[in-house]
Amino acid sequence: MRIGELSKASGVSTPTIKFYLREGLLPKGEATGRNQARYDDAHLRRLRLVRALLEVGGLSIASARDVIAALDDSDLGAHKILGVAQHTAARSIAFCDEESRTAAVAAVRAMLDRLGWRVGRDDPAVFAAAEVVGAIRQLGHGELVDRLDDYARTLEPIADLDMAAVTSRGDIDGMAEAVVVGNVLGDELIAALRHLAQGDRSAELFGRRPESNR
Amino acid sequence: MRIGELSKASGVSTPTIKFYLREGLLPKGEATGRNQARYDDAHLRRLRLVRALLEVGGLSIASARDVIAALDDSDLGAHKILGVAQHTAARSIAFCDEESRTAAVAAVRAMLDRLGWRVGRDDPAVFAAAEVVGAIRQLGHGELVDRLDDYARTLEPIADLDMAAVTSRGDIDGMAEAVVVGNVLGDELIAALRHLAQGDRSAELFGRRPESNR
Repeated sequence: MRIGELSKASGVSTPTIKFYLREGLLPKGEATGRNQARYDDAHLRRLRLVRALLEVGGLSIASARDVIAALDDSDLGAHKILGVAQHTAARSIAFCDEESRTAAVAAVRAMLDRLGWRVGRDDPAVFAAAEVVGAIRQLGHGELVDRLDDYARTLEPIADLDMAAVTSRGDIDGMAEAVVVGNVLGDELIAALRHLAQGDRSAELFGRRPESNR
Repeated sequence: MRIGELSKASGVSTPTIKFYLREGLLPKGEATGRNQARYDDAHLRRLRLVRALLEVGGLSIASARDVIAALDDSDLGAHKILGVAQHTAARSIAFCDEESRTAAVAAVRAMLDRLGWRVGRDDPAVFAAAEVVGAIRQLGHGELVDRLDDYARTLEPIADLDMAAVTSRGDIDGMAEAVVVGNVLGDELIAALRHLAQGDRSAELFGRRPESNR
């Protein structure tokens, strides 16, 4: 299909598609003339994924590009899946002062040791977790992270569900894409479900339905 | 303190502080002259919270303003806490086509019924969850949300930990702020911990530590 048809099929405007092409978020089409290219269903599928990463997942263009590049890496097998997972897990936040950061990194590593999780000490997710823990403490809300081990332990069955879903895909490319979608959109899903669960617990605690307050 | 001292104490530049003042993210200081105002520790504390919501939580200026406004609402008690929680739970994403959205909203409501969660059918979190569920299905990764009830059930102990942490604060203002920090930064924390848990499960499944791949 032409770019105009790709736009129609996806609901994404032609200028936006051209922007994604320039930014390397979408592979170039097959050139059919000086200023024309042909696109196929793989482009449409990728375009939808890019939209979801940006709009639903809230990724920056740069982060989305990293994730897409990992997805297009030609390596096969578990290597690829893990590489993709690491790219989507890494968020570069810098909020804490040096002292809070050092303490938080140590706390997260100690937690990993206690739980026996096989995660590298310099895994990007270690620093991502530490930055948030440090930020929460710096804000004077240490009560929210005092039970870090309990929070982490509760997420083990979530990770098991994640792995079961990803490995239910037979093909490596499908698995790799499931890792991306499951990590980026999955974060949003877990957040939304957690807010619903909190709504239920609030209703119990405060004795009325949240909606009746407004 | 003067605005320059507030800048020094917080590490936030004076132009940025002025921007936050204009945007209503930070309350005005006490006027001490034609172009001068005095700020106190409450301003410093609020400034740190605003930074964390924007930088760590990734909120937009508009969302941060809504959350801050809810926090400053003069109502007291459970009403206030729930109002704040609802503001932080609402994210306005629009990704799905109408058909996917309708199906996803029905699926989330059916899940709430099966779980017996006391959440209003039109709670913002219902639509937030549905938008993500719909997006994941539209992308062809239904395998990630087929076990929605299991995911949701696993989050019940997380919500219990959240409520225990929030109610451990004795004061209403502290509780309201804990709800904001716990929701916005808590989402990031849960995401980071989930990525760590996934790393552990990947290592088990693929038989090596993710870091050895890079």
